[in-house]
Amino acid sequence: MNRQQLVENIRRKGSFLCVGLDSDIKKIPAHIIETADDPIFEFNRRIIDATAPYCVAYKPNLAFYEALGVEGQIALEKTIRYLKTNYPDQFIIADAKRGDIGNTSALYARSFFEYLDVDAVTVAPYMGRDSVEPFLGYEGKWVILLALTSNKGSGDFQMLKCDDGRYLFEHVLATSATWAGPDEMMYVVGATQGAMFADVRRLAPRSFLLVPGVGAQGGSLDEVCRYGLTDDCGLLVNSSRGIIFASSGEDFAERSAEAARELRDQMTKILKEHSIL
Amino acid sequence: MNRQQLVENIRRKGSFLCVGLDSDIKKIPAHIIETADDPIFEFNRRIIDATAPYCVAYKPNLAFYEALGVEGQIALEKTIRYLKTNYPDQFIIADAKRGDIGNTSALYARSFFEYLDVDAVTVAPYMGRDSVEPFLGYEGKWVILLALTSNKGSGDFQMLKCDDGRYLFEHVLATSATWAGPDEMMYVVGATQGAMFADVRRLAPRSFLLVPGVGAQGGSLDEVCRYGLTDDCGLLVNSSRGIIFASSGEDFAERSAEAARELRDQMTKILKEHSIL
Repeated sequence: MNRQQLVENIRRKGSFLCVGLDSDIKKIPAHIIETADDPIFEFNRRIIDATAPYCVAYKPNLAFYEALGVEGQIALEKTIRYLKTNYPDQFIIADAKRGDIGNTSALYARSFFEYLDVDAVTVAPYMGRDSVEPFLGYEGKWVILLALTSNKGSGDFQMLKCDDGRYLFEHVLATSATWAGPDEMMYVVGATQGAMFADVRRLAPRSFLLVPGVGAQGGSLDEVCRYGLTDDCGLLVNSSRGIIFASSGEDFAERSAEAARELRDQMTKILKEHSIL
Repeated sequence: MNRQQLVENIRRKGSFLCVGLDSDIKKIPAHIIETADDPIFEFNRRIIDATAPYCVAYKPNLAFYEALGVEGQIALEKTIRYLKTNYPDQFIIADAKRGDIGNTSALYARSFFEYLDVDAVTVAPYMGRDSVEPFLGYEGKWVILLALTSNKGSGDFQMLKCDDGRYLFEHVLATSATWAGPDEMMYVVGATQGAMFADVRRLAPRSFLLVPGVGAQGGSLDEVCRYGLTDDCGLLVNSSRGIIFASSGEDFAERSAEAARELRDQMTKILKEHSIL
């Protein structure tokens, strides 16, 4: 999916919500575990059917699938096929945080963009240019590079000050901008980083930002939007646990729809206030 | 496997060789592809049987398995089970380069240390302490943290100079040493980094280093050992392509054994020269 299509979907739906499919087998409602042959897929299918009207993207977090071995891999592949078949306007992000030497990254790229055929994959920057480049150059596919993450440990290295006065995450933004433009590279910037969004926007004025940390991790949607919105939105805000585990009862799908709709309503209002809708 | 057991294996075998199972389906000998039900596993099994006398560790690179989806996952699990059943003295490293927010890293840890039950997993440091800690505290299991990698892109961020005069990779070594000691954390330091090993050893005097890049990537075993050896060895030197793809003919297993034995012989000589044997 290219940038224009993504922006059209955001405008049509009045939403820049990404639903994180962190489908932890230990948190899936008991009645699904008891009755479904493939409970992870069944859970995802019902969450997707309930929330698709309110979001523009889904982000399966690969850890939750890998933890189940072969079964998890099957559930992941079925989920992606289900999305592509039934909701072809959804942007699919494999949250994998990969990054390795060139020939290995090339294989990961093949795995995500050819075999799984997702739209985007999250990539860690530590190993530098030749670990990221193999993911680039696929038509309509995206790299989402970690820049400033939402967790406490983001302070350990990302906020180290370099001898030119810039933080490491600013070097990641500036250096990676020489590898790819804002039509094929996005950045992960955590919602918990608040006012740092202004610094990010100075270095990445047009790039889409994937923003985790609204909800369970405590980030504020308003603050993210105040500093992060561009004139074509430029944000995908992710919520995982707050939506998919809104209820552990038989009403889990309806409750996930309510949680997603509520975020969509806030997003529509914000998009109108900023004259993007 | 704990440090003492690993060191005993190194002394007994006169080898600190790790064989990288980068088992690319596109490079596996044609006669294996044509005749085996599970060519990746069959290839690995024959490589393992041929090389096990000469090495102390195997390192499947997960990219090569993930690229094949469910089939690859099955081949990986069979390979690990085969090693654990037939060669319980081999140290098994899942080369995955994971690292994510705490609850996600905790799942990856469960996946690698409980489900797959490998001895070690490679982890990327960019997200900081809470992305690494969930991998710690498993009895006899290890984190192998990326410090200074063997690829060209290692210069992009790892060699950034911070405002205290230290490089980023030195901060990674120093900061992570406050999270875990040398009995449960190792570091990846590429063989192509040559004299930088002396700087690494100043900050990590006792830690085991996993050293890729000897062979195909051009690193020198002698140079690595000159700066990197500790009094109980402290090195695991990895070779992948140079061993497993030593031949693409029917003699591939014999040729992989020859390549591994040659490295083992060099290592025995070096261990004797340094009075470790």
